[in-house]
Amino acid sequence: MLIFVFLILRHKIPTNPKPILMQNIQKYITENKQRFLDELIELLKIPSVSADSAFSQDVLDTAYAVKTALDNAGCDTVEICETDGYPIVYGEKLIDPKLPTILVYGHYDVQPPDPMDLWNSNPFKPVIEVTEQHPEGAIFARGACDDKGQMYMHVKALEFMVKTDQLPCNVKFMIEGEEEVGSSNLSLFVAKNREKLANDIILISDTGMIANDVPSITTGLRGLSYVEVEVTGPNRDLHSGLYGGAVANPINILAKMIASLHDGNNHITIPGFYEKVEELSKAERAEMAKAPFNLEGYKKALNIASVYGENGYTTNERNSIRPTLDVNGIWGGYTGEGAKTVIPSKAYAKISMRLVPHQDWKEITQLFKTHFESIAPDGVTVKVTPHHGGQGYVTPIDTFAFQAASKAYETTFGKKPVPQRSGGSIPIVSLFEKELGSKTILMGFGLDSDAIHSPNEHFGVWNYLKGIETIPYFYKFFTEMKGI
Amino acid sequence: MLIFVFLILRHKIPTNPKPILMQNIQKYITENKQRFLDELIELLKIPSVSADSAFSQDVLDTAYAVKTALDNAGCDTVEICETDGYPIVYGEKLIDPKLPTILVYGHYDVQPPDPMDLWNSNPFKPVIEVTEQHPEGAIFARGACDDKGQMYMHVKALEFMVKTDQLPCNVKFMIEGEEEVGSSNLSLFVAKNREKLANDIILISDTGMIANDVPSITTGLRGLSYVEVEVTGPNRDLHSGLYGGAVANPINILAKMIASLHDGNNHITIPGFYEKVEELSKAERAEMAKAPFNLEGYKKALNIASVYGENGYTTNERNSIRPTLDVNGIWGGYTGEGAKTVIPSKAYAKISMRLVPHQDWKEITQLFKTHFESIAPDGVTVKVTPHHGGQGYVTPIDTFAFQAASKAYETTFGKKPVPQRSGGSIPIVSLFEKELGSKTILMGFGLDSDAIHSPNEHFGVWNYLKGIETIPYFYKFFTEMKGI
Repeated sequence: MLIFVFLILRHKIPTNPKPILMQNIQKYITENKQRFLDELIELLKIPSVSADSAFSQDVLDTAYAVKTALDNAGCDTVEICETDGYPIVYGEKLIDPKLPTILVYGHYDVQPPDPMDLWNSNPFKPVIEVTEQHPEGAIFARGACDDKGQMYMHVKALEFMVKTDQLPCNVKFMIEGEEEVGSSNLSLFVAKNREKLANDIILISDTGMIANDVPSITTGLRGLSYVEVEVTGPNRDLHSGLYGGAVANPINILAKMIASLHDGNNHITIPGFYEKVEELSKAERAEMAKAPFNLEGYKKALNIASVYGENGYTTNERNSIRPTLDVNGIWGGYTGEGAKTVIPSKAYAKISMRLVPHQDWKEITQLFKTHFESIAPDGVTVKVTPHHGGQGYVTPIDTFAFQAASKAYETTFGKKPVPQRSGGSIPIVSLFEKELGSKTILMGFGLDSDAIHSPNEHFGVWNYLKGIETIPYFYKFFTEMKGI
Repeated sequence: MLIFVFLILRHKIPTNPKPILMQNIQKYITENKQRFLDELIELLKIPSVSADSAFSQDVLDTAYAVKTALDNAGCDTVEICETDGYPIVYGEKLIDPKLPTILVYGHYDVQPPDPMDLWNSNPFKPVIEVTEQHPEGAIFARGACDDKGQMYMHVKALEFMVKTDQLPCNVKFMIEGEEEVGSSNLSLFVAKNREKLANDIILISDTGMIANDVPSITTGLRGLSYVEVEVTGPNRDLHSGLYGGAVANPINILAKMIASLHDGNNHITIPGFYEKVEELSKAERAEMAKAPFNLEGYKKALNIASVYGENGYTTNERNSIRPTLDVNGIWGGYTGEGAKTVIPSKAYAKISMRLVPHQDWKEITQLFKTHFESIAPDGVTVKVTPHHGGQGYVTPIDTFAFQAASKAYETTFGKKPVPQRSGGSIPIVSLFEKELGSKTILMGFGLDSDAIHSPNEHFGVWNYLKGIETIPYFYKFFTEMKGI
């Protein structure tokens, strides 16, 4: 799941000041609120951690739970589509071939919950607690926001439309179980099922919005290249007394190699890395700088004395229009309690690069690999294993789909949403465009403070219900506009 | 346990070409060989890992096993001496106050066995296997060499002397359970029990020798400063898409800080670090360079293309007369299977520095702490926690004790041992000198290839028995020389 940055673009939306409301939507949500929560909570109890094979049965169980939910919500057919990895749940309700078709994408897998000791409650025993951002309570659980909660909004929105006979168009659901590990099997599935997945627009809720009173729609995503590196020194762990200072210590070397990937200005030093990066004009950057952003509040929320990043760019630029390189994990040697005087044989790191439009993730991965191998000193060997990646993406805002989404938010939030670029990545979005020829609308209802990918992930009860309320309006307006 | 480096010093030992042999020692060892092995194997089965509190009961059990062994070997009294940590086993056999007293020191705790997956057999289910270095077999187990095996040689040597009525002097045993975690409670115990521990010489087998046909005695040890560092960035783990490039990533920062601790010549950059380091003269270094050392064999044994270290020094100098800084462990972020795009809140490292004589470990620890904290950039906070440490040590070779040891090796190995400086550390050796006023003789029987502190630690059966044979001769010659 991805969250926004505060890049606001000027835009003009043709507004209909008095849209026709869906019948009984508020009433339906109020009457079914507890059941909507209970059902999501049951789904959140299954630890569908796709990155860790210890949870493989749970991931499978979750796929079946999603199938049942789609059946119950009113899909005509729902299939568990096997892949070489975890299955894709595909469901559809096709009411009229002449009407538009919306393809809803989401994922039922979740990030690993660790570090476990920083959770205030069990990540797989959901609890509802009030927070400053969520006075009506938030569900705390791994996957609450990313993406089970946001995916389930679509299931419940479908239920409302079917049960009240207000579904205005055809709908297809494609819910996968490998988003958090690179969606590699989804790519094959999409390429092989172009006809089955044919649609007029793809709808995804796997991003966030600025605030509950500042709704926003994500219009840009960064690309991603994720690699794992392994540095090997001696063929076995050595006693640091005997060998210390005399052989290359893989941890020291790895630290040195990682440190060298940024220069004194925090530019990335990989040759060719910036070659295709789009440089925004002064005017565009000035426009971005108008976005509401409180640096002091940002620092306070993270408890940091200072922000840190590429010289010459603002915080909002650093995490949206600039590519970055971060170590996401590092390990080697003795990491247990107490002390061990060892020079390990190996040290490892997981490194990801966020890319901006025009940077090709496969090319960047190759540039990284070539460079990282080239800077290894004699005395160690280096292995770079590409993990996964994806291209960046920019959604045009002058389309029916964006306008329909904007109008949907305006109807339920009472104000126009802000278009914004996200610093995150949903690699399959550009794949969808390539394979299916469809654009994607990213309607996210999570908040930055929801701690996705972190301990104490949560999703506001208000946001969950607001999503269920807003989605049907997108269906309605999109169908109306396409029908014109 | 410590292993040698090939620093050979010229020395003159007054030799007695025909020393009077101990009665029946070869016979006794041959007849009891299987029992000696069986008893050691039982001791090795107890996982006395002092660094990990999960093993605390096992560490205690090992203390009691050592007590029983000392009782059985012929000590008059053996006590379990409680400390704030693991107990010290103290035993003694005092036959005549006019005779010299030898204090034997050893430890019954062991290093953690991880990484477990690199062991060929269970580290706590000892097996005997033949190796290239040990054609008569070696016992594979954590602690086989360091230090249970070497400590137990002294117990069995005592048994021989007592059972055959050949104990020539008084003997005290002090076997601790916290050597691998810094011996902090031993320091207090020694300071409080000066009279009880009074002795003429301290005897330790916790080092190694050059080869089975090149016996050697360790005459120098490096000091040690061991610290743990913690770098904290944001107050929680963050999604690298949203925050990547905009806030300080503790792993990237830690890597940068670690990398900066060495300059381009692999000198340590901590201000004042080298101030008290003794620079050896050209002549001394030329003497060192005469030691047998095969660089190609060294590289081949470790499977490295190149050695790596401080410019201007040879491999043997780098790991004996030069101080060093090594990261012994590093961790942070996601280290599990698969991928997680996280910027962690914290990253950690365990760092140790090997020190040479005249460097004070407490002073160096403070220099490290001050420097490391000073190089932290804004946006992170750094905590440095000193773990433990100890001073370096040099044993004089113009003493009765050294001469007695040398003569003992000459008697059982058939050739004079080589004095050598070790790169490792036994911090309590300098403490003993300070508190008890005694010198220490380091008679080690392990080999470099015995993989102490590593997976597949082992100890040669031949070496174990040769130790049991050699130790009584030290008692004999030391007593004879002191008696003159």
